[in-house]
Amino acid sequence: MIIVLKPNISKKDEQAVLKEIKKLGYEPHVMRGVERTVVGAIGDERTHHTLETLTAWPQVESVMPIQKRYKLVSREAHKGNSAIRVNKDVIIGGKEFVVMAGPCSVESETQLMATANAVKAAGAKVLRGGAFKPRTSPYEFQGLGEKGLKLLAKARRETGLAVITELISQDHAEMIAEYTDIIQIGTRNAQNFQLLIAAAKTGKPVLLKRGLSMKIEEWLLAGEYILANDNPNLLFCERGIRTFETYTRNTLDLSTIPIIKKESHCPIVVDPSQGAGRADLVMTMCKGATAMGADSLLVEVHPNPAEAWSDGAQQVSLEMFAQLMRDLKPFIAAAGRE
Amino acid sequence: MIIVLKPNISKKDEQAVLKEIKKLGYEPHVMRGVERTVVGAIGDERTHHTLETLTAWPQVESVMPIQKRYKLVSREAHKGNSAIRVNKDVIIGGKEFVVMAGPCSVESETQLMATANAVKAAGAKVLRGGAFKPRTSPYEFQGLGEKGLKLLAKARRETGLAVITELISQDHAEMIAEYTDIIQIGTRNAQNFQLLIAAAKTGKPVLLKRGLSMKIEEWLLAGEYILANDNPNLLFCERGIRTFETYTRNTLDLSTIPIIKKESHCPIVVDPSQGAGRADLVMTMCKGATAMGADSLLVEVHPNPAEAWSDGAQQVSLEMFAQLMRDLKPFIAAAGRE
Amino acid sequence: MIIVLKPNISKKDEQAVLKEIKKLGYEPHVMRGVERTVVGAIGDERTHHTLETLTAWPQVESVMPIQKRYKLVSREAHKGNSAIRVNKDVIIGGKEFVVMAGPCSVESETQLMATANAVKAAGAKVLRGGAFKPRTSPYEFQGLGEKGLKLLAKARRETGLAVITELISQDHAEMIAEYTDIIQIGTRNAQNFQLLIAAAKTGKPVLLKRGLSMKIEEWLLAGEYILANDNPNLLFCERGIRTFETYTRNTLDLSTIPIIKKESHCPIVVDPSQGAGRADLVMTMCKGATAMGADSLLVEVHPNPAEAWSDGAQQVSLEMFAQLMRDLKPFIAAAGRE
Amino acid sequence: MIIVLKPNISKKDEQAVLKEIKKLGYEPHVMRGVERTVVGAIGDERTHHTLETLTAWPQVESVMPIQKRYKLVSREAHKGNSAIRVNKDVIIGGKEFVVMAGPCSVESETQLMATANAVKAAGAKVLRGGAFKPRTSPYEFQGLGEKGLKLLAKARRETGLAVITELISQDHAEMIAEYTDIIQIGTRNAQNFQLLIAAAKTGKPVLLKRGLSMKIEEWLLAGEYILANDNPNLLFCERGIRTFETYTRNTLDLSTIPIIKKESHCPIVVDPSQGAGRADLVMTMCKGATAMGADSLLVEVHPNPAEAWSDGAQQVSLEMFAQLMRDLKPFIAAAGRE
Repeated sequence: MIIVLKPNISKKDEQAVLKEIKKLGYEPHVMRGVERTVVGAIGDERTHHTLETLTAWPQVESVMPIQKRYKLVSREAHKGNSAIRVNKDVIIGGKEFVVMAGPCSVESETQLMATANAVKAAGAKVLRGGAFKPRTSPYEFQGLGEKGLKLLAKARRETGLAVITELISQDHAEMIAEYTDIIQIGTRNAQNFQLLIAAAKTGKPVLLKRGLSMKIEEWLLAGEYILANDNPNLLFCERGIRTFETYTRNTLDLSTIPIIKKESHCPIVVDPSQGAGRADLVMTMCKGATAMGADSLLVEVHPNPAEAWSDGAQQVSLEMFAQLMRDLKPFIAAAGRE
Repeated sequence: MIIVLKPNISKKDEQAVLKEIKKLGYEPHVMRGVERTVVGAIGDERTHHTLETLTAWPQVESVMPIQKRYKLVSREAHKGNSAIRVNKDVIIGGKEFVVMAGPCSVESETQLMATANAVKAAGAKVLRGGAFKPRTSPYEFQGLGEKGLKLLAKARRETGLAVITELISQDHAEMIAEYTDIIQIGTRNAQNFQLLIAAAKTGKPVLLKRGLSMKIEEWLLAGEYILANDNPNLLFCERGIRTFETYTRNTLDLSTIPIIKKESHCPIVVDPSQGAGRADLVMTMCKGATAMGADSLLVEVHPNPAEAWSDGAQQVSLEMFAQLMRDLKPFIAAAGRE
Repeated sequence: MIIVLKPNISKKDEQAVLKEIKKLGYEPHVMRGVERTVVGAIGDERTHHTLETLTAWPQVESVMPIQKRYKLVSREAHKGNSAIRVNKDVIIGGKEFVVMAGPCSVESETQLMATANAVKAAGAKVLRGGAFKPRTSPYEFQGLGEKGLKLLAKARRETGLAVITELISQDHAEMIAEYTDIIQIGTRNAQNFQLLIAAAKTGKPVLLKRGLSMKIEEWLLAGEYILANDNPNLLFCERGIRTFETYTRNTLDLSTIPIIKKESHCPIVVDPSQGAGRADLVMTMCKGATAMGADSLLVEVHPNPAEAWSDGAQQVSLEMFAQLMRDLKPFIAAAGRE
Repeated sequence: MIIVLKPNISKKDEQAVLKEIKKLGYEPHVMRGVERTVVGAIGDERTHHTLETLTAWPQVESVMPIQKRYKLVSREAHKGNSAIRVNKDVIIGGKEFVVMAGPCSVESETQLMATANAVKAAGAKVLRGGAFKPRTSPYEFQGLGEKGLKLLAKARRETGLAVITELISQDHAEMIAEYTDIIQIGTRNAQNFQLLIAAAKTGKPVLLKRGLSMKIEEWLLAGEYILANDNPNLLFCERGIRTFETYTRNTLDLSTIPIIKKESHCPIVVDPSQGAGRADLVMTMCKGATAMGADSLLVEVHPNPAEAWSDGAQQVSLEMFAQLMRDLKPFIAAAGRE
């Protein structure tokens, strides 16, 4: 920690700060500058009592952390890339570029099976589909629930695709884990720490979407909740942040691809459907994400987007998805993936 | 809903849109403008299948909702102000201006009792204190848990103050309800709908903090989850939003006071401690909130802020709080409150 | 400056950093921590070559400034409050609370004189009115230009009110200075430094609106351009920032009132009309700003808001303004102003 | 325009709205819904008096525009892609992918010539370099001024590269136009309309950077100021927006590439250096922008970034730039460019 003292404070006030620093287990290191005195506090910021409370002292101008607050997810903890095994055929974060695709919500057997067969034929390896949906309004469709999970299990059985679905309640963790290969934590629950712990404890791979206004550091720390609960199978998923722009539903922050790669050993997945909120932008977003080194894409696909029960505007049709998979090929190759 | 068609589309494409509108239960109403054709779709947007999916159609430029999506929380549903009874002595949203105060976290009996006695003496009616703390990092202090709840119960018994504490897990809802008079939903859980439903079902008053990047409409809709689950005792609490500014921890959006008053019948509480993240700004924020018609304040108070186990920078001392209560008096009077 | 080095770098890489720090005129001060080595660089950050470029070095993790970058506008440079004399009768930043009011745009003699007489009768001391308007679209009304300035001069002559109007072009600085008592720099030009310099050189008081996404530090530094060009007559004006919220046009950040008071000696003015973009919120915003210690308000008033040539939605009528001035009185008194 | 009336208003209040709509030259079209009455106002929103002022009327709930406010820059006005001729060899927006590169600021002949020769050798076609620098603080390096322009002219003469430099003052427009092939409008001046008009009038190609918090619609409208002043040579340049994230200096919004392509016929350039503010992210950003269909890149390059006089953290070295140009090749090919 670096503690900046206010200009012209008394010797006594300065001593009080130094005493407190020592009391909390750090070794103070005084530097007298032209206008201000600065104190470096040496010690492990993650295990000691935080010095940020010193901000409340009248003689202190500011307190700045030096150490990174995340540990297990950090690149420093694990130099190589972590590759996450999803099932016997699918690994995310390795040489192969993996596409996950499927409807926003599971609506019916017909809808799900048509989508599953089509995305498999086009080259997807994982089927996405929401059975429990967190909706902004209590009056909107909340998902088919366990019936939806059973349909996903059927699609998995018949197509061999792995399955990803969202967990929205701690009480469902075990049930969801039975039916799915990857547990998705949605953007609105990205700092619902009890849910993160429940998901971690299933041992299944966890895909953690970035919260709507989550700083990268906070996202990494939310991921730390998974690893700190003995589950090393973490995937970060960028899906757009909230900004002032209203043309798109969210602003997809593709810079997180190189940043997560730099700060962490965990794979990074990009969800261009939520990110743009508009099917007509999804294809271009996918190209960018692929070129920038994303390990995987998560794409919303629906047999008839205009009649979808949720988020129709952002789902691409089966034909568009097949086209997308064809058009992505040169970019996957240019990025050195298979 | 208003559906704006793209310029120069074919008659057939236009007919397809009109057919879909009828199919979804609305009556279409065509207006031919200079450049574009616009279709008004008449029907109750809250009960019908949403037309927003039409955005995915190539001949459609945009779809705009007309109706408000919230219902039970809206001023249209209930013309008067709802006053929420907290215990036999305390009502929030009535003539009396109510101050809630206490530490960020319950740390010990000494700390809590000292604070409780001091804030009562200064005029507070409700004691706040966190027993379960949602923390950004898994390595930070997570609260005393049920032991903290028991200390709150003791403080309530000895001082007569009502108690407010945060709920962070569905599984704790019943336990928390036993110990507290108001259940607080924190900013990171503001769209954790399962938690909202669990809180609603206890029947206790629920204080719903605004999420970090929650639009006012989304906040009202999250409140709708409480009322739609048969609990009319809802308090909205503004606590600052996330913006680009880094001087303060959050940007306290005081404009929500008149806006919530205009859109809803539920009381509005302001939390200047989280909003500013700096004790030295709390007093001024309280004056503003009071003048603008807030029904209540939620202030973090600690006997020794610099040694607090969480959020020390934003807690005011017992002396500062007593001063604050004295200085607020003329503003409470000017606002026509007691 | 504080320079944080990466973990496990070579002795040689560390030496290179220390050498560069010395070369740029600072004295390095090494602190060896548990995981990282931190270097304090002692020297005046405002006069030396910046060390932030060290961020580009591979062995450097981060560089953090310690000193404040503003100087003349800072409270450290001038302990007391600066009171700005506008004309022989009006001082902003003193004991008296000053209200500035008038139309968004000057439209006609009738419109301006009706407004001027009404706001004077209600107690305003300064007449606002735009003659040159910066408009988002080239097809919108751009103001009456010099004809508008002449109407303002006439209103000043006949009512005795001081006048404030906006400068949008360096080339107009002298002309505007002839007709006005305060030069307004608008939000879109808040970092148009050539315009700031031109305004400063007139010697007239300059009201500097905060830019749409301007951090407080940047705003203070933009103000520094005025004082550094030998014009001490600076007024900061908060008018709302751009956030994700769409209910209001901007988010009025009232926390800037105590912050500017803390960081600077210059007065702070609040513009609730731009801040809210809705006339129905203006009154409540004014109460809050007054209670929080603003030195002055800048309110848009129009004889017939619905027919205004610009920004009709946010202008209050003559009657509403008179009511506002009456209703503000207890809050002005509570804030210790006259 | 769509005007939504409040529920349960009187017949008389409704009539007053209809009368005003007619008075302002629109034809009203009434739709009676379940809860609200909605009025469509038919007419050209760009040429008529705006109806947004109706928002100020008590019986009106909201007013929504339907037409797009931009005209000349829109894809509807010009179906094909506009290709902008920079000099006899360089066209931006055609089949060829054009890279512009050079230092943030022109510092000396040695620095500029070394950079110019190196970027030319690596394949760049345009040399960038700032002679007049808009700086946040008045105490920072403000550029070499006309001396810098002369050095750029020398580099152009000796290398044959085209030149781009920034215009920060209306008074410099003619001088800058003499020395440069493209005039850059910086992010802080993106809504300095007087500067836009002065730039347009030189007839030179104008590169318009997106403002820090500029909505896409506002950016297109600022571009409209160029075309409406008879200069068809407009380039949009995405350079990152301001968000809550602090890891990067700005958030590069790559979704603007497909959006500008969809809404406008003008080319889109991406500046990854400003966007990321970190040299280590520039390469990946360039890959993404190229894959997503940007017409050109604008990259900051410096012979010794750590000793740059401005923005050292975001400039890449000559070697890194040469590498970048090599690594980009497969992505340029995949995007169908040369």
